[in-house]
Amino acid sequence: MQTIVVALGERSYPIHIGNALLAQPELLLSHLVRPRVAIVSNQCVAALYLKKFTTTLESVGIRVVPIILPDGERHKNLDTLNLIFGALLADRCDRKTTLVALGGGVVGDLAGFAAATYQRGIPFAQVPTTLLAQVDSSVGGKTGVNHPLGKNMIGAFYQPQVVIIDTDALATLPAKEFSAGLAEVVKYGLIRDLPFLEWLEQRMDALMARDPAALEEAIARSCANKAEIVTQDEREAGLRALLNFGHTFGHAIEAAMGYGTWLHGEAVAAGMVLAARLSERLGYLDRSAVQRVITLLKRAGLPVEAPAISVDRFIALMAVDKKVDSGKITFVLLRHPGNAFVAGDVPDLLLREVLAGRTATHA
Amino acid sequence: MQTIVVALGERSYPIHIGNALLAQPELLLSHLVRPRVAIVSNQCVAALYLKKFTTTLESVGIRVVPIILPDGERHKNLDTLNLIFGALLADRCDRKTTLVALGGGVVGDLAGFAAATYQRGIPFAQVPTTLLAQVDSSVGGKTGVNHPLGKNMIGAFYQPQVVIIDTDALATLPAKEFSAGLAEVVKYGLIRDLPFLEWLEQRMDALMARDPAALEEAIARSCANKAEIVTQDEREAGLRALLNFGHTFGHAIEAAMGYGTWLHGEAVAAGMVLAARLSERLGYLDRSAVQRVITLLKRAGLPVEAPAISVDRFIALMAVDKKVDSGKITFVLLRHPGNAFVAGDVPDLLLREVLAGRTATHA
Repeated sequence: MQTIVVALGERSYPIHIGNALLAQPELLLSHLVRPRVAIVSNQCVAALYLKKFTTTLESVGIRVVPIILPDGERHKNLDTLNLIFGALLADRCDRKTTLVALGGGVVGDLAGFAAATYQRGIPFAQVPTTLLAQVDSSVGGKTGVNHPLGKNMIGAFYQPQVVIIDTDALATLPAKEFSAGLAEVVKYGLIRDLPFLEWLEQRMDALMARDPAALEEAIARSCANKAEIVTQDEREAGLRALLNFGHTFGHAIEAAMGYGTWLHGEAVAAGMVLAARLSERLGYLDRSAVQRVITLLKRAGLPVEAPAISVDRFIALMAVDKKVDSGKITFVLLRHPGNAFVAGDVPDLLLREVLAGRTATHA
Repeated sequence: MQTIVVALGERSYPIHIGNALLAQPELLLSHLVRPRVAIVSNQCVAALYLKKFTTTLESVGIRVVPIILPDGERHKNLDTLNLIFGALLADRCDRKTTLVALGGGVVGDLAGFAAATYQRGIPFAQVPTTLLAQVDSSVGGKTGVNHPLGKNMIGAFYQPQVVIIDTDALATLPAKEFSAGLAEVVKYGLIRDLPFLEWLEQRMDALMARDPAALEEAIARSCANKAEIVTQDEREAGLRALLNFGHTFGHAIEAAMGYGTWLHGEAVAAGMVLAARLSERLGYLDRSAVQRVITLLKRAGLPVEAPAISVDRFIALMAVDKKVDSGKITFVLLRHPGNAFVAGDVPDLLLREVLAGRTATHA
């Protein structure tokens, strides 16, 4: 087991990464105000892991209230949030009950926002079961739900007391979702950690074979990178923007195709290639560096070409993204592999050239 | 104009209290990231003050988006919150837009929670127009909405950038609501400020006549008391509990009668009398001190007798209040006028005696 600490003063918390952690109750117990938890999960994850985890917790006297949500991103809204509140109130949970998210990013975002706002805030713990949640959404304190007019438009910054990442949970993850999680793993290497990028290039085959030691290392190094960024910029005032590498393009792809058609990680992968091409067009990267990005993402089972979207529509979709500041689209670009920066002044013409290179035949 | 500062480090903010403040745009302008605000109000308040305030703001180049909510506590829920989000998104408001609450406690709680959660938090300003909101809900950062299973069960602690209290807005406040606001004013004197209590005993007639100088002084001293408490206990870990003097009884009265039948301040007034009687029964107060509480509240036009509720029902309603810790009801009692404390170990028998004294004939 490895432990990464997210250093946020009085809001600091550990991330434990290893195998068989769902069988170790003390990892959670030591963070409880009172031996009482409400576990938020979805139907799919609950069927696989809820009984096992509940048995673990009950073995040390923790009382468990399960709250099972319908599965899927389309339920990440205020109505589902209200289901959680109703269940907590029906069970008369008070401010000393800890809310535990057992599941992927949707469960974590919903449960985290519920914890942030139930009785104005109760303790929270993350037990992510998808690779994407383990390396990205469970770390950093972003929580929230979607609005019909925009994704993640409603939420809070709210840090957990502890994050418990059991790599065994990845055994049941579909290949497509596993690859989608790897997109964010590769991202950390690309934006700020060249040694990790090189490690990924050496160990990608082991990761794709879900080798336990490789998984633990990849997750720990991803979490360490995210923790360092979050520590320096908890509320997304600046540095944290680097985490959006590939995401401005990726969100537009997701929106254009209809959310859920492309997985988030898949859209981010294709978006990272576009960001690399834009970096090349602006003179930062050479062609071989772009090819290096493409090669690694392909080995991770990820798409490297955006789907057919007209240039105008692509730009319009990027402009509604909430990272737009005063009408100007900002991009995260690569100065070189392992070093990203925020560019707020990309000439429209160059952007269109890069997008047209991907989409001209379908525009 | 008087200014009270709520000292919360980087979250510190001023409260300006005086007349004709809705005509002074710079009080708000100096706190804006960008000259753009969304003003949340309700139909009633908007009809009285929105045009005037908007004209003031537009005169210095601030762009104003009005968001008008239906009037009433029954609309303080997630659905109405969603109306605010929809309006903000439709107008493409980003994180640099300041949300302004123009109205009473319901508007302030809704708008504050919307500001806390829209895009994970945008700047917020309070312009309270009822006495209750001016002396209580607009100060301290509590925001939230009701759930069908409980009041204020969903929310966040979220501090405004500035609170602007125009005493002129009280000219249109119905007498019943004005008195309800005075209940919280009297509360500050009772729990921690004997000189203010004595001042209120001298100036209650002037306050009831809505004398501008008396109003400004009463509001400023109330806000100063609340600010001192909030400064020491932003997240309600301890001291802030004193602000609940009369509220445990009061919430039970509101719930028993059906929310809205008794105004919050009216229920708190009757609740403060019960808390004073319980303090007397426990040997802290003498009868004349209880009478002093009753006399002042009567002069403020407030009820001093709880309605007919059976003792068992009264206790059951108090037990579901969220201030219950581990099943034990805690009370805020008076050691003497001007000095309150939290008691978590009130014998059930004595509590029943006090409640029965009020309600035995209807039990």
